[in-house]
Amino acid sequence: MAVAFAAPAPAPQDPLPSWNDGPAKQSIIAFVASATTPGDTGYIPLAERVAVFDNDGTLWTEQPMYVQSAFIRDRLRALALEHPELLENPAVRSALGQDGGNGGGDDESSHFEPSAELLSALAAVHAGWTVEQFGRAVLDWLATARHPRFHRPYTDLVYQPMLELIRYLQENGFRTWIVSGGGADFMRPWVDSVYGIPREQVVGSTIVVRYELRDTVPVLIRTPRIEFIDDEEGKPVGIHRSIGRRPAAAAGNSDGDRQMLEYTDGGTRARLMLLVHHDDCEREYCYDRESAVGRLDTALDEAQARGWTIVSMKRDWKVIYPFERGSAGRNSGGRRR
Amino acid sequence: MAVAFAAPAPAPQDPLPSWNDGPAKQSIIAFVASATTPGDTGYIPLAERVAVFDNDGTLWTEQPMYVQSAFIRDRLRALALEHPELLENPAVRSALGQDGGNGGGDDESSHFEPSAELLSALAAVHAGWTVEQFGRAVLDWLATARHPRFHRPYTDLVYQPMLELIRYLQENGFRTWIVSGGGADFMRPWVDSVYGIPREQVVGSTIVVRYELRDTVPVLIRTPRIEFIDDEEGKPVGIHRSIGRRPAAAAGNSDGDRQMLEYTDGGTRARLMLLVHHDDCEREYCYDRESAVGRLDTALDEAQARGWTIVSMKRDWKVIYPFERGSAGRNSGGRRR
Repeated sequence: MAVAFAAPAPAPQDPLPSWNDGPAKQSIIAFVASATTPGDTGYIPLAERVAVFDNDGTLWTEQPMYVQSAFIRDRLRALALEHPELLENPAVRSALGQDGGNGGGDDESSHFEPSAELLSALAAVHAGWTVEQFGRAVLDWLATARHPRFHRPYTDLVYQPMLELIRYLQENGFRTWIVSGGGADFMRPWVDSVYGIPREQVVGSTIVVRYELRDTVPVLIRTPRIEFIDDEEGKPVGIHRSIGRRPAAAAGNSDGDRQMLEYTDGGTRARLMLLVHHDDCEREYCYDRESAVGRLDTALDEAQARGWTIVSMKRDWKVIYPFERGSAGRNSGGRRR
Repeated sequence: MAVAFAAPAPAPQDPLPSWNDGPAKQSIIAFVASATTPGDTGYIPLAERVAVFDNDGTLWTEQPMYVQSAFIRDRLRALALEHPELLENPAVRSALGQDGGNGGGDDESSHFEPSAELLSALAAVHAGWTVEQFGRAVLDWLATARHPRFHRPYTDLVYQPMLELIRYLQENGFRTWIVSGGGADFMRPWVDSVYGIPREQVVGSTIVVRYELRDTVPVLIRTPRIEFIDDEEGKPVGIHRSIGRRPAAAAGNSDGDRQMLEYTDGGTRARLMLLVHHDDCEREYCYDRESAVGRLDTALDEAQARGWTIVSMKRDWKVIYPFERGSAGRNSGGRRR
């Protein structure tokens, strides 16, 4: 799954070449410099260098709909051909745009938000699949699906400055983890090649799986039952469950990340809390307090009150996506930590 | 938490100096040699090198009772002084040896097995604690508790040959994980210093924790509710939940590890399944099919049928514990993977 990236190494004096100079970049560099300087008041022992990243809207674009929502919609489309009875479910009809709404559209105005009812319908259809089958379906879909505005694979729409941040932290001894409200099984197949984060280091929402011998082969089977929602209060809980350590650094972009950032801020050592603010209407999207997807409201207030690092995509980032740099690909890879 | 160990480096030609030559040692070395040789049919890409270890009876002594059971018993003793009403619970009285039974004894004949009722009583008493408070209680207890036969801290009673195996795998690119029926919160505080395994790489049984702000400090609070039992079928499920990848190597010692070994064996790449057989009555304990603690019955049959590597403690291990080597400590540490 690991992919070697051929890209020019950044100048050694600037580990974050896609970040404009400013308070955000300065706070990151000051944090890492202190964390790695023995004797400094901000020093963090190697064992405690854990950094957690939300995924949707923090590492890649979540508009006009969560990527996982697009996956679900497309899976439903395909499945409705095989199982027309699915269309008896109004949530499914709505998702596929067969009710006169715009849920199924591919244009930018469609804000498909999977309801609990819809997720259950989808989980029911995937129930009985092995976890490996599901992972292959995700990769197959990512290979062909295209973003409605940028007409590129979704995995092209990752944020170049965040790839640099991940790599910078890794090079300074941090283990980097994804902590996302999205499904762990949806993310694990591709996070290594896309972010340089090992699939083991993913915390996400989960469904119940069942161990069984299928034709004498031991497999894990997906059930339709949701086990854990890794969002809001669930994020610190998921971090404890899977990582077992309070992070030293956390990055998010929405109210769903507020408790994760708070929990990180509650540590007694030096720490970095970073909130990505989507304020670039031209190069990406601009949304915050009123958005249906990735709403940023109470977390923005808390970031301001507590002095967390707010990243303005418009002001702080020279480029948004790797392809804007004119190079062939991402340059985040290499080391995996 | 990481501790530096001063110990002579093993001779470079023998990564497993405490293992006698024989089929077990040979199968381990052949597996690792193949796994790390590009082009070999047994080659395993770096990203897929994940090794999982059961804890009780596989990495440290589990007789005459699970170490966690001794912790629970001692915690109950202390708590019964503060909360005499605990003694109204027959399970608690039995555990503390106040019912004429031998549950509370410190001698080798006591086989204290915590019942669900007892675990619930204990969890109820610890409910409201933060996860950090609980972790400190574990470390405080380990610092003073002594094994009834060996009169040493429990963390001295780890298996030197397994420490060498962990280190050998780590040095060959494997990420090593604990996958134990014991509590994750019970193990995380000390696995780094004792095994050289980062606390993040622990899969275990869990109780439900709750996120809250306590005097404005964000904390995770233990509840009395059991969330997940990481044993038998739970082990492959826990591996999927926390690691998200089928292991390439697995080591266990009891029927509780059978499904984990099966699941590992179900992979399509080269793989190593290792079963520790407690057959050394003099240096450690001998038990298998009839034991209340760490029963090894169906897993032994399956190991023989499937050709898993069975490790005879008596025949395959030159020493059991680090202190038998006459050196000052363990030599497993150093690299953490």
